[in-house]
Amino acid sequence: MPKRFSPEEYAAGVLSGNRVLLSRAITLVESTLPSDQLLAHQVMEKILPHTGKSVRVGITGVPGVGKSTFIEAFGNVLVEQHGKKLAVLAIDPTSQRTGGSILGDKTRMETLSVHPQVYIRPSPAGKTLGGVARSTRESILLCEAAGFDVIFVETVGVGQSETAVHEMVDFFLLLMLAGAGDELQGIKKGIMEMADAIAITKADGANLHPATSAQAEYQSALHLFPLGASKWSPRVSVCSAYEKTGLEPIWATVKEYVTLTQGNGYFQRRRQDQNLHWLKHSIRQSLEERFYQHPAVQAQWEQIAHQVTAGQKSPFAAAEELLNAAHS
Amino acid sequence: MPKRFSPEEYAAGVLSGNRVLLSRAITLVESTLPSDQLLAHQVMEKILPHTGKSVRVGITGVPGVGKSTFIEAFGNVLVEQHGKKLAVLAIDPTSQRTGGSILGDKTRMETLSVHPQVYIRPSPAGKTLGGVARSTRESILLCEAAGFDVIFVETVGVGQSETAVHEMVDFFLLLMLAGAGDELQGIKKGIMEMADAIAITKADGANLHPATSAQAEYQSALHLFPLGASKWSPRVSVCSAYEKTGLEPIWATVKEYVTLTQGNGYFQRRRQDQNLHWLKHSIRQSLEERFYQHPAVQAQWEQIAHQVTAGQKSPFAAAEELLNAAHS
Repeated sequence: MPKRFSPEEYAAGVLSGNRVLLSRAITLVESTLPSDQLLAHQVMEKILPHTGKSVRVGITGVPGVGKSTFIEAFGNVLVEQHGKKLAVLAIDPTSQRTGGSILGDKTRMETLSVHPQVYIRPSPAGKTLGGVARSTRESILLCEAAGFDVIFVETVGVGQSETAVHEMVDFFLLLMLAGAGDELQGIKKGIMEMADAIAITKADGANLHPATSAQAEYQSALHLFPLGASKWSPRVSVCSAYEKTGLEPIWATVKEYVTLTQGNGYFQRRRQDQNLHWLKHSIRQSLEERFYQHPAVQAQWEQIAHQVTAGQKSPFAAAEELLNAAHS
Repeated sequence: MPKRFSPEEYAAGVLSGNRVLLSRAITLVESTLPSDQLLAHQVMEKILPHTGKSVRVGITGVPGVGKSTFIEAFGNVLVEQHGKKLAVLAIDPTSQRTGGSILGDKTRMETLSVHPQVYIRPSPAGKTLGGVARSTRESILLCEAAGFDVIFVETVGVGQSETAVHEMVDFFLLLMLAGAGDELQGIKKGIMEMADAIAITKADGANLHPATSAQAEYQSALHLFPLGASKWSPRVSVCSAYEKTGLEPIWATVKEYVTLTQGNGYFQRRRQDQNLHWLKHSIRQSLEERFYQHPAVQAQWEQIAHQVTAGQKSPFAAAEELLNAAHS
């Protein structure tokens, strides 16, 4: 166990942009030890006034879409052409299972991972979605306090984590493949309606034409959707990480979105709503954890759930039965 | 207060198809009186073995789409051409606010409301979404026990209730207008991805051509979506309640869906999942209600929520603070 610092030392280190202290602070917010959590709370309290100044971009897409390659190329544009300081976080609780398609495999981002303006942090191992969502959200704030002005939050578009990411970013980018009859099936329903932009990847060589057709199809499909409260119409574009084309336009789209939503107040309101969302979400999670771990509930759960599933017992009557058992 | 019957009397009445007893039983499941709820549980338990044999169809669309007229015309096709026994329930907790666009206004369904094979039940007044979701779900079961073999659950596609309806029906039908730039904005994000079929209404006269174009657009848009676990590709059709056209094909679509999903097992699995969903949902709702009504939480909530919203306090730290207050 490495030496623990005081809350002041962590905060000062993070605020000065010290990478080692930033990493240690993130490890702290990822820890499930009560003493670490207490310390993490104190650190977060100190850095909170220095957060909020980045653009938070969620990036998702099924395995095979070329997410790492895209992030490498797109990230390089941001740091080289726009002088941005970029942090890349991963949220996927399943990254261990899907075999390193997430940032665990840093070698896929060779240039980016050694760039002085870039900080890459893989998804913590062995955590539930609730745990990783919480630590990722606090990691965003820590990276902001450390001076990073663009934060990517990466996830695989096949699980539950996209909704969580959507609730912690300003802009949600969905990567898709052209003509992806099969690949598409991997995307979860509802994800397309969360996207602020869709980028068709690998639009190079023989793939360029199908990519451009897909772009037109998706663009007209998205037009059929209602505009959200942001008043933003989602964009569809094509890009190639290999040929380094179409990346500038994606960044231009993000900037345009930020300008629009900061102008109409949606940007700020959304972040406030997200804060409240995470408050209610954590409360709910704790209440449910406590309930489902109650001995009386654990003793009856399997049988009652079976009866309910089979239609032999009303779900509402069963809920009352369990609630009474837990509170008596 | 009318005389209350015994659980046996309610159950026997419902099972014999007695309309008066069916209505009284629904009133019972809608009641919030603890003694009524206890009785309702007993009635539900008795009728449960006789439920499950209907096709449950959710119908939604924004005000102005012609929902009542559609249900009147479509319902008549079912009872007249197919000999179905049809129950029509409404779930909207906001029906009072939107001024009777829901079934409260039975006069819009003149023929249907007096048809001997049809039972229409308006949304209960003054209930929360949680309350109305629960009573609607139990009403579906009561109607099934009373011998109705098609159940419509109607809702307005602008609020939170569509997700609830989606979780209690087998088939979700979205009604839309052609060229509805503005009307579309009323539809909530995510609803289109829930639809098993979209029907473009009012496809008659000068409206027929725009309706047919809209049909083609939506159909190709929906093809871009991933197939769900049902393996069903959503259909788009046009219809006119006024000219009574396009209604048979919608029923054919529902039947085709039922055949497909009963064949691949999705239909049964989905209902089981829905049962479990409502069990967990009721538990969550009760836990949250109890928490937010706790005096210690009520005393601090406003201030803490404000600090969290403003970004002055971490949502996670705040959650712990409130949870400790509630449990100490």
